[in-house]
Amino acid sequence: MDLLNKHNTIRKFQGRPVSDEQLNSLIRAGCRASTTGNMQLYSVIVTKDARMKKKLEPIHFNQPVVESAPVLLTICADFNRFTKWCEFNRAKAGYNNFLSFLTAMIDAILLAQNICIAAEDKGLGICYLGTTTYNAKEIIDLLNLPRLVFPVTAIALGWPDETPEQTDRLPLDAVLHNETYEDYTKETILKLYAYKESLESSVQYIKENSKETLAQVFTDVRYKEEDNIFFSDKIIQVLKSQGFL
Amino acid sequence: MDLLNKHNTIRKFQGRPVSDEQLNSLIRAGCRASTTGNMQLYSVIVTKDARMKKKLEPIHFNQPVVESAPVLLTICADFNRFTKWCEFNRAKAGYNNFLSFLTAMIDAILLAQNICIAAEDKGLGICYLGTTTYNAKEIIDLLNLPRLVFPVTAIALGWPDETPEQTDRLPLDAVLHNETYEDYTKETILKLYAYKESLESSVQYIKENSKETLAQVFTDVRYKEEDNIFFSDKIIQVLKSQGFL
Repeated sequence: MDLLNKHNTIRKFQGRPVSDEQLNSLIRAGCRASTTGNMQLYSVIVTKDARMKKKLEPIHFNQPVVESAPVLLTICADFNRFTKWCEFNRAKAGYNNFLSFLTAMIDAILLAQNICIAAEDKGLGICYLGTTTYNAKEIIDLLNLPRLVFPVTAIALGWPDETPEQTDRLPLDAVLHNETYEDYTKETILKLYAYKESLESSVQYIKENSKETLAQVFTDVRYKEEDNIFFSDKIIQVLKSQGFL
Repeated sequence: MDLLNKHNTIRKFQGRPVSDEQLNSLIRAGCRASTTGNMQLYSVIVTKDARMKKKLEPIHFNQPVVESAPVLLTICADFNRFTKWCEFNRAKAGYNNFLSFLTAMIDAILLAQNICIAAEDKGLGICYLGTTTYNAKEIIDLLNLPRLVFPVTAIALGWPDETPEQTDRLPLDAVLHNETYEDYTKETILKLYAYKESLESSVQYIKENSKETLAQVFTDVRYKEEDNIFFSDKIIQVLKSQGFL
């Protein structure tokens, strides 16, 4: 519990490597997470090779963490292995569809979070790469992911070389609903986001980006509609070519 | 790490309730999980009311755990709150698309797994309800989920009234790939699944279902192609009506 409450994303790592033994114990703990029907619908691709990291860097929009972390784990939703097992056992697999993709994606993210918590328990630091879905196509090509395998996230992993301040979170009331969803009024929204907006870092952020509000930094700079539409179309195409749609 | 490695799904609960204080501390720990751009793209709907549980039961295909657990948490991908915040701050939100759904879904599952680990750390037991996506439409109607909110999983939570044997997992080699994905040959598949197939419970399972192989129990009984196609279509419709497609 304390460990969870102390979580911080780490973006600067020491040169010190992570041993195969350490890595295996993390992934083993990952595999103990709940999984639909005990099917374990995931695969983990380990990147340590400097040339592979160099190739992954632009795919992850040149986030410096890709090169600096000693290990990168690409976490995939995987119905290929299970489907092959079915086919070799006189069973007709029917997992080339959207429900199966979502099921495998959930399995994969549960595995990912267990790996991260196990890593932090051992003193390692982690950074999720949300860019994974954006350029799934390029990752599939580089890592040779077959049909029915789709990269859902990636984790940069290593020994921390920084101790960042913990980021803010909304008050619990913002995410919690009793029995039914109570939709937000303007008044509640302004109240729930007041602390976030008051932070020095937020004020700085607005200034640096020459915006009027913090929300505009998100909509106009960080997560823009045109990009979201572009990458949505791209991901849908990739889900089709990987056999999930 | 030990906690992760000891995980077991719990399906039988004591009558003893989970206090609001306990529940809040779990969800607070959940909110410390990594989240895309610190947007916290999730909501948690708490079900304690017996009448609500009674209504959720058939939606979750009458899994007895829905009624027996003192608390049910429906975990939602939520871009509604963030979008409202944008709109109230002169920012044009563009999150009604598939990329945004996947991003919020990842945020929501990371939160869910943190909640589960925090719960187990406090001696509570959990059971994921994978049925949530299947009948997302019915859950949306019952819990009044607005546009840009989609239930991705649910957690049954309570004090354990059983100590089940831990389920098997595939050898680490099954899920681990170095640098690139090495696709599976028939020989590797048979080797990787040999232990699972040899288990007494597997042999029993084949017999009970009058099948020839364990894989056939999955394809012909538990996760059938016709069901997968039916629910895939249903989910795609719901993603459209919730504004994500």
